[in-house]
Amino acid sequence: MSVVIAIANQKGGVGKTTTVINLGAALAELGRRTLLVDMDPQSALSAGLGVDSYNLQRTIYNVLVDSEMPIQEVIHTVRPNLDVVPSNIDLAAAEVELISAIGREYVLKEALAPIRDQYDYVLIDAPPSLGLLTVNTLTAADQVIIPLQCEFLALRGMRSLLESISKIKAKVNPRLEIRGILGTMYNTRTLHAQEVMDEIRSLFGDKVFDVVIKSSIRFAEAPVVHQPILEYEPNHEGAAAYRKLAEEIINGEKTSQSQGQG
Amino acid sequence: MSVVIAIANQKGGVGKTTTVINLGAALAELGRRTLLVDMDPQSALSAGLGVDSYNLQRTIYNVLVDSEMPIQEVIHTVRPNLDVVPSNIDLAAAEVELISAIGREYVLKEALAPIRDQYDYVLIDAPPSLGLLTVNTLTAADQVIIPLQCEFLALRGMRSLLESISKIKAKVNPRLEIRGILGTMYNTRTLHAQEVMDEIRSLFGDKVFDVVIKSSIRFAEAPVVHQPILEYEPNHEGAAAYRKLAEEIINGEKTSQSQGQG
Repeated sequence: MSVVIAIANQKGGVGKTTTVINLGAALAELGRRTLLVDMDPQSALSAGLGVDSYNLQRTIYNVLVDSEMPIQEVIHTVRPNLDVVPSNIDLAAAEVELISAIGREYVLKEALAPIRDQYDYVLIDAPPSLGLLTVNTLTAADQVIIPLQCEFLALRGMRSLLESISKIKAKVNPRLEIRGILGTMYNTRTLHAQEVMDEIRSLFGDKVFDVVIKSSIRFAEAPVVHQPILEYEPNHEGAAAYRKLAEEIINGEKTSQSQGQG
Repeated sequence: MSVVIAIANQKGGVGKTTTVINLGAALAELGRRTLLVDMDPQSALSAGLGVDSYNLQRTIYNVLVDSEMPIQEVIHTVRPNLDVVPSNIDLAAAEVELISAIGREYVLKEALAPIRDQYDYVLIDAPPSLGLLTVNTLTAADQVIIPLQCEFLALRGMRSLLESISKIKAKVNPRLEIRGILGTMYNTRTLHAQEVMDEIRSLFGDKVFDVVIKSSIRFAEAPVVHQPILEYEPNHEGAAAYRKLAEEIINGEKTSQSQGQG
């Protein structure tokens, strides 16, 4: 049974899509069967891995609004061990169309159910909002990773996000856990970034991943040529950081499993 | 009584905020009392006019979720004739909090009601989604301007947007009209942009504004120094284009008023 991890933050531009692509690529590289699901209508995840989703007739949108459409029909294999369920701008309409659906929070969860056995990890890229697409993402997930930009006022908006997570845990998805907070866009040239990370660690303690993702223009360049940074520049420290994050994820899984059995 | 114009498209990066800032600045320059309302939680409009909204305790969010908070308390005058109601990332939570509100579609409309006499034009910057913040924006508006990027597949997503507009017109806001479709990011170096504009004109006829906004790095530079392009480079053709659009808007108003009286 796969572990389903949502990557969520209602702030745009904090590194959600970069994290889904590169954590996904790192897990695949380590031999884990990995599925990436694009729940953002702006479809940067799909584009960044070379799935030309604007021309696709069927995407996650069709799966969400048509309960007869199996998710298997919209899965694209992009690398060994790495599959993608793409989105495109059609998905923006689902935000509206699902409002009147019965069990509207559970639509993505139910869509994923038949394929959960086929993957070790399912990573879901949430849109930069707290609307119904994000609610579906968090309802379908076992865990959530929150990327936080290491900049002034990074925490603005965190309360709303944590409240949303709490509500979803209380009402529709009791097993949802915050897997970790990931510092992103860390600028080593300023003292300020370190101060922000210190503040984040003092607030969230061991919920903060050891690894921190540093700012790099390579993260902007790689998706233009449809590659994870692990391929685009395999020895870059950004690639190393996402490999380390993948190991933290895999090892944490083992730890919590053995704790569960112990 | 002011004319309230929504600038909407669920696609991100098509020039919504650029249009609100520069059309607003052009209307103000022509002596029209103009209010700009930021309904996007990513708050690029607020930032682009120098309203440091991240540090504000009260923004459009507070007005929407607290019916006791008058909108007058969150208006910032940024230039002669030009006022701004800012947003920040708090607004993302309103998308969720309003779901259970009675008359949830009308919250922005009611908030604007007491100040409509004080302005000639109210321009509202919608977020790149079709969720409840956009529904509120379209419910509060008399007219909608749709910016369309002059690029391949510009029309992808238009059907969903037009359907949303039709539904809002049918159910909550019968006087909502499409004021016009605005070609943006027109690249004069490619034949392709002209082909896209031709296609848009053949589909939407005289609903397409005569003026077309050309691509220019100046549109990215101006907000960094908190200026409309009309100030940043007053003689730039982008500034001229938005002045022409403002004149189309003002003259169109007179035409429809005199038609109404005739």
